[in-house]
Amino acid sequence: MTHLPFSGLISFARAPILDLAADFRADVGVLGLPFDIALGFRPGARFAPRAIREASLRYALPPEGFYDLRTGQRKLAGLQLVDAGDVILPSLEPELARNRITEAAQQLKSRVKLPIFLGGDHSVSYPLLRAFSDVKDLHIVQLDAHLDFTDVRNDTRFSNSSPFRRACEDLPNLKHITTIGLRGLRFDEEAVQAAKSRGHALVGMWDCADLEKVIQQLPEGKNVYLSFDVDVLDPAVLPATSSPEVDGMSYATAMTLIRETVKRNTLVGLDVVELTPALDASGNSNLLIARLIMETLTEVFS
Amino acid sequence: MTHLPFSGLISFARAPILDLAADFRADVGVLGLPFDIALGFRPGARFAPRAIREASLRYALPPEGFYDLRTGQRKLAGLQLVDAGDVILPSLEPELARNRITEAAQQLKSRVKLPIFLGGDHSVSYPLLRAFSDVKDLHIVQLDAHLDFTDVRNDTRFSNSSPFRRACEDLPNLKHITTIGLRGLRFDEEAVQAAKSRGHALVGMWDCADLEKVIQQLPEGKNVYLSFDVDVLDPAVLPATSSPEVDGMSYATAMTLIRETVKRNTLVGLDVVELTPALDASGNSNLLIARLIMETLTEVFS
Amino acid sequence: MTHLPFSGLISFARAPILDLAADFRADVGVLGLPFDIALGFRPGARFAPRAIREASLRYALPPEGFYDLRTGQRKLAGLQLVDAGDVILPSLEPELARNRITEAAQQLKSRVKLPIFLGGDHSVSYPLLRAFSDVKDLHIVQLDAHLDFTDVRNDTRFSNSSPFRRACEDLPNLKHITTIGLRGLRFDEEAVQAAKSRGHALVGMWDCADLEKVIQQLPEGKNVYLSFDVDVLDPAVLPATSSPEVDGMSYATAMTLIRETVKRNTLVGLDVVELTPALDASGNSNLLIARLIMETLTEVFS
Amino acid sequence: MTHLPFSGLISFARAPILDLAADFRADVGVLGLPFDIALGFRPGARFAPRAIREASLRYALPPEGFYDLRTGQRKLAGLQLVDAGDVILPSLEPELARNRITEAAQQLKSRVKLPIFLGGDHSVSYPLLRAFSDVKDLHIVQLDAHLDFTDVRNDTRFSNSSPFRRACEDLPNLKHITTIGLRGLRFDEEAVQAAKSRGHALVGMWDCADLEKVIQQLPEGKNVYLSFDVDVLDPAVLPATSSPEVDGMSYATAMTLIRETVKRNTLVGLDVVELTPALDASGNSNLLIARLIMETLTEVFS
Amino acid sequence: MTHLPFSGLISFARAPILDLAADFRADVGVLGLPFDIALGFRPGARFAPRAIREASLRYALPPEGFYDLRTGQRKLAGLQLVDAGDVILPSLEPELARNRITEAAQQLKSRVKLPIFLGGDHSVSYPLLRAFSDVKDLHIVQLDAHLDFTDVRNDTRFSNSSPFRRACEDLPNLKHITTIGLRGLRFDEEAVQAAKSRGHALVGMWDCADLEKVIQQLPEGKNVYLSFDVDVLDPAVLPATSSPEVDGMSYATAMTLIRETVKRNTLVGLDVVELTPALDASGNSNLLIARLIMETLTEVFS
Amino acid sequence: MTHLPFSGLISFARAPILDLAADFRADVGVLGLPFDIALGFRPGARFAPRAIREASLRYALPPEGFYDLRTGQRKLAGLQLVDAGDVILPSLEPELARNRITEAAQQLKSRVKLPIFLGGDHSVSYPLLRAFSDVKDLHIVQLDAHLDFTDVRNDTRFSNSSPFRRACEDLPNLKHITTIGLRGLRFDEEAVQAAKSRGHALVGMWDCADLEKVIQQLPEGKNVYLSFDVDVLDPAVLPATSSPEVDGMSYATAMTLIRETVKRNTLVGLDVVELTPALDASGNSNLLIARLIMETLTEVFS
Repeated sequence: MTHLPFSGLISFARAPILDLAADFRADVGVLGLPFDIALGFRPGARFAPRAIREASLRYALPPEGFYDLRTGQRKLAGLQLVDAGDVILPSLEPELARNRITEAAQQLKSRVKLPIFLGGDHSVSYPLLRAFSDVKDLHIVQLDAHLDFTDVRNDTRFSNSSPFRRACEDLPNLKHITTIGLRGLRFDEEAVQAAKSRGHALVGMWDCADLEKVIQQLPEGKNVYLSFDVDVLDPAVLPATSSPEVDGMSYATAMTLIRETVKRNTLVGLDVVELTPALDASGNSNLLIARLIMETLTEVFS
Repeated sequence: MTHLPFSGLISFARAPILDLAADFRADVGVLGLPFDIALGFRPGARFAPRAIREASLRYALPPEGFYDLRTGQRKLAGLQLVDAGDVILPSLEPELARNRITEAAQQLKSRVKLPIFLGGDHSVSYPLLRAFSDVKDLHIVQLDAHLDFTDVRNDTRFSNSSPFRRACEDLPNLKHITTIGLRGLRFDEEAVQAAKSRGHALVGMWDCADLEKVIQQLPEGKNVYLSFDVDVLDPAVLPATSSPEVDGMSYATAMTLIRETVKRNTLVGLDVVELTPALDASGNSNLLIARLIMETLTEVFS
Repeated sequence: MTHLPFSGLISFARAPILDLAADFRADVGVLGLPFDIALGFRPGARFAPRAIREASLRYALPPEGFYDLRTGQRKLAGLQLVDAGDVILPSLEPELARNRITEAAQQLKSRVKLPIFLGGDHSVSYPLLRAFSDVKDLHIVQLDAHLDFTDVRNDTRFSNSSPFRRACEDLPNLKHITTIGLRGLRFDEEAVQAAKSRGHALVGMWDCADLEKVIQQLPEGKNVYLSFDVDVLDPAVLPATSSPEVDGMSYATAMTLIRETVKRNTLVGLDVVELTPALDASGNSNLLIARLIMETLTEVFS
Repeated sequence: MTHLPFSGLISFARAPILDLAADFRADVGVLGLPFDIALGFRPGARFAPRAIREASLRYALPPEGFYDLRTGQRKLAGLQLVDAGDVILPSLEPELARNRITEAAQQLKSRVKLPIFLGGDHSVSYPLLRAFSDVKDLHIVQLDAHLDFTDVRNDTRFSNSSPFRRACEDLPNLKHITTIGLRGLRFDEEAVQAAKSRGHALVGMWDCADLEKVIQQLPEGKNVYLSFDVDVLDPAVLPATSSPEVDGMSYATAMTLIRETVKRNTLVGLDVVELTPALDASGNSNLLIARLIMETLTEVFS
Repeated sequence: MTHLPFSGLISFARAPILDLAADFRADVGVLGLPFDIALGFRPGARFAPRAIREASLRYALPPEGFYDLRTGQRKLAGLQLVDAGDVILPSLEPELARNRITEAAQQLKSRVKLPIFLGGDHSVSYPLLRAFSDVKDLHIVQLDAHLDFTDVRNDTRFSNSSPFRRACEDLPNLKHITTIGLRGLRFDEEAVQAAKSRGHALVGMWDCADLEKVIQQLPEGKNVYLSFDVDVLDPAVLPATSSPEVDGMSYATAMTLIRETVKRNTLVGLDVVELTPALDASGNSNLLIARLIMETLTEVFS
Repeated sequence: MTHLPFSGLISFARAPILDLAADFRADVGVLGLPFDIALGFRPGARFAPRAIREASLRYALPPEGFYDLRTGQRKLAGLQLVDAGDVILPSLEPELARNRITEAAQQLKSRVKLPIFLGGDHSVSYPLLRAFSDVKDLHIVQLDAHLDFTDVRNDTRFSNSSPFRRACEDLPNLKHITTIGLRGLRFDEEAVQAAKSRGHALVGMWDCADLEKVIQQLPEGKNVYLSFDVDVLDPAVLPATSSPEVDGMSYATAMTLIRETVKRNTLVGLDVVELTPALDASGNSNLLIARLIMETLTEVFS
């Protein structure tokens, strides 16, 4: 294995490529969802799974793991990581697309301890969450600039503004959502009231000045699905997203929240959505997301 | 009116903006279809109506028309041109989107002599053509690198590979299609056979070396709907398209075919599709398409 | 009205378009000044009015106003916002251009409570300010990395380094200027002395560490014209400007200063200058400026 | 001298840099005019002199000249080439700018056999031509998509649409202009009539199909100033120009016309204008123009 | 297998990925050489193997082959195509890098009928050709704008200007080279004489006007290694190359020369070099090269 | 001298250009090393010397120096600054390249008080440091995200990961290295141990929260060579680098560390490496580095 990131065939962090139909078991499995047709603004997230994989070659995992300068320890030694490829998704048949996402997520979930889903726009989280309908007392931690709890937008109930609304309707086991990083000039009042009436925690970016207090609002001892919308990050840190909101989260704060979430809970799934590679010609946004995923793994598996 | 193309508010060629609901009459009406979610490759055609309008400011039409150096004549003097804005299109409800396109096209068609539709990907041509179901003996001239007559692709019947297949199924008045500019490494054999069995004319780019012979294959004395897929042009001439095919048509050849088509027939509608502005950072592709539309008007109205 | 930001015709925040010659009244009017020929560095600000308008479609104002998550209140409900288009500006006749700017600004000022001017480079502020020669005891708050108080640069007195010098010479009612955000490796000493001798407040970026103290230097109870040069912001936050200076202001600090300014004073006019859209291919800079203007309105009209 | 084009300090083709004030003599002198504020469309030609110089390093002239594969001969051996830098040009004082251009051109003209001027937009040709008011029976060959003979545009007489009109008014010795490559959707009728009434030759791009015939229209035995507007080239060949016109000239045709012009006449000056480097991120447009200038020298000095 | 080109894991045309160490046999094998440090101009060809693979997904080969519209035939049905990944290449140990290339090429050559090598800059052709030292009477057909037969350039004998010079020195079986597409302002006279003295055919781009005559100069009945430097193509057709030369070859002409070469000879190897993906942000250059390779296969295997 | 940064010939801050062979003396000399072939990731640093020079024109030094607003003082008045051009560097002869770098650095060092080296990738620091083998008790302060103390990487001992390892082996006078800004997901454990065993100070980015403490770790009263790898900066601040690491240093912190370093020690040399201009299309990264160098000069010479 080379660690020349411009060389060699591409899989997530140079993990072996295995078909979902195959009978494998692993610690972590990565699945791509090249789907970006939910109503929004600037398309291109369909290229994100590929871009994240390519960037992840900078973080190819050697068998002995990563040596961490700060702690002097090795991390992720022996981790079994698998790349399960992309789900093939028709566009003009969105219900079929949603069903395929759910089915593939169920398969991956049955094979690995931690399934990681690479979006795609945020609409994919709804069919992904359907694969977690059997998880007891499911909690979601959503890092996001937007609430994504809208009922109907522009005549559709399935846009990237609605995944968690739909999930709450369909999944009785979905107990609670903590959304952190909210900001922006305008919100959908009906969505805000609906989320509040369900008892969800809505944490504005302005609340993150007191990070300790935010951490205390995180669930504890729960089964947690983490949904990471890259637009939670500040656009200066991550320009490559469809709907940027200024004055966002630093990478360090995001990693702290992820760390505290996985420390206090059992992480049952992770999605990373709304990365739009073409909006950052330098490719730096892709590199950052690849690292964020690998760093999340160091928190989960240590 | 200024002719500074970087200044002033934007409408197609600085035409007045009128709502489709209003009771107006005009020679030409332009309607945008910012829709790019049909299965394909590189998205972004949703920004094409806006990009074409902005580029068209270089061709703002003065009341006295354009002075043509070659002929010494004025063209398009007094033409009544109207910009009817964009159709609002939901994405994850594709059937609803198709219905809205058809309805808006019907409205525009009832108000102007020549409706011009700015795509959007090529899937919009099917709902557009449904608005022409009342035209007697409808012929289509399609300038395109691809046949777009596929039955089913990736589990959908409505992708940008299928608009003319669907139109043929639904519109008994659609008599014939002439497709010019075909090329590429591979074709859908079933689609080719289906088109041939209906008697359609399939003209390869290689046939265009003898342009006279191609012109003779054009319909004569018919009601013609012209569908212009920008990928018929050579990618060196127009890089900004999702699925480019090398060794394409020059602008001059395309204009000759348009000229001969409108000279011999009655043009009942025109669509221009598959322009993807973000793929040509210079903006030159947009400028070319804006000119092509205005030059088509000089052929129709003279 | 759609809130699909890639769809529909373009006016500032989807406001109605009205000609300055028309007899209208409104709360806010927006006027574009596509002018970027004052001596400087990287041209392209002539495209800023258009780019800001396009970006502002993300902030189309619904009649019921924006719902603010933090306060739970609606903002800008019923605001009458008008887009008055662009001034047509010759380039090689700069005196004529300046006169047209002044005249158009006077017209807009007579029709709306708050006129907003979209530059263009900073040289436009001088002819804009001439339209405010009738305002009693005019104060200027200038957010800017540069002083722009140079007498003569490269043989001209009208470059984007001199607007406030010229304004001070011509407008007896211009009492005071507070410039905040100054930084950079070198300054024009003569300009600094001239500004100081007039009693202007020159606030360096280094002073902004103690924001409370800066706020106390703001005027109170005055008629204030706010001139926002986008290069006051940190280039990481806003890369799209001709002459970036590192270690600049955050968006949050800029909004705090704007908020405190409008709270303590009467805002009589606002210009936003030096945005150069082509320098940020992502378009994020444009989106940020559109939001900054809308958020300023929420501060003024609440 | 290296021929690594990414290495070393920059001057035109690695020529020695000499100040116009110095008392030198040379075969060829290059002078830059970083000026792009004449009314037009997309600014940025101010960066063209620098971009052409940088690209020209690929064509650094060794003392023994270039070896030509086709003829087996050495070309430009011993040519004395000098780079005289750029004229410092104020913007908001356009008359002063024009005077400085004229003066610098006179100086260069007095020192070299062939002065080459790197624009800048086409407005610079008027003050450049004033430096040739002493040339007997001056003829101009203008390769250009546009006529640039407009009297007044957008309230100015000095835009990049008018340089030759102004020159004709001011220079009694300017006998004739041959403009080749004209095309586009619209022309200024008054300008066309004015040019024709003076007997100018207006050669459309459509006439260039019969190149021999065009060549016969070239002047013979005259003092010729060649003005090369890069937009005469096809935008596929040279995308980096403010106002592209489709279906333009190939490089080969342009070089043929240049070759025939210099063969039949005495070339007294050359300008190359309207290159806008930022519109071609590949840099290929700059490389092409650098080569065109060097290849022109091989025609003149052989 | 999907034919959504933005979806799924990446291998050349979705071929199976096999390690060179494995004991496989196939018709065609593809090997990447991400190496771009030979002296030149603009680096970035190290990303070409990856970019070509990604683009090739548009040409994923179905088992039944491609249906060709022009002939009505299926092509490449049942072709066994394998992707053997990239060679791991150190940079500051160039001799070691060359040895690894030779060794990997030998391995691939022993396993497949036609090995295809994806450069990298043109310097890789020398170590590649060393793997063909056992081929009887080896002929090379080189499509290239440059001769690449220089002895020493900038103190090195192994730059991308010298691969064929080195090969001729080392390989007694290398009988003849036909170089087609030569052009440019200057040539290395010593290199030209050396090539001519060996009897090589040097065919200028100007000779390609009479393509029949060029075809007659191709070898016949020989073992031919085809070296395709993408800069043989016109920069308008393929902008993404380090050292573009204007007035180059069309894709159609290049394919004709390839077709005639493989028809008359036995193709023993193919390399495609000097593609620099970052110089064409549209990605169209990559798509063109992927197609050229697949189309070459249709000529070889039919 | 103009201060129009888009005008005029290019040298560092408009300093006079002098050949290293000439017998000159100056305060500061700048030398470019356009070399980027050491193993790494994204090439292009070969264009950095040119890009930094072009950007530095914004900081052309007038004889009277820069006027500093904060202190009211003039800085760098009368500084003798010289641009010594670039070293001509072969690529495929890396040992020769290293020798030329060492030799040129020795020459520059003998002529100026402070030599400044513009990389190039970080591998150049090793041959540069060899020119300082005569400096008593040499200390290095390295601002860098990476340790660059690896023994062998990808079969080479001379990559951009190893310059300081090689320098320590070769230079007995090299006493100590302080590396500040370290961060990233993985480190080379062997390199970390080797550096620690030599007593080097390894300061993580996380330590920089307490900047005072970091400053106390700086050497005092030593001869210091400062090696500035631009990737020490946060990628939001400086995107244009090959191997960005998120959560990096602000410009202000970097300047503080530079200031404190030069205040407490004698600065004997400075290199600035790993700038990759093509990765930041806005050019802002280049401008920032040009300013950082000039600002460093104000600290050294005051």
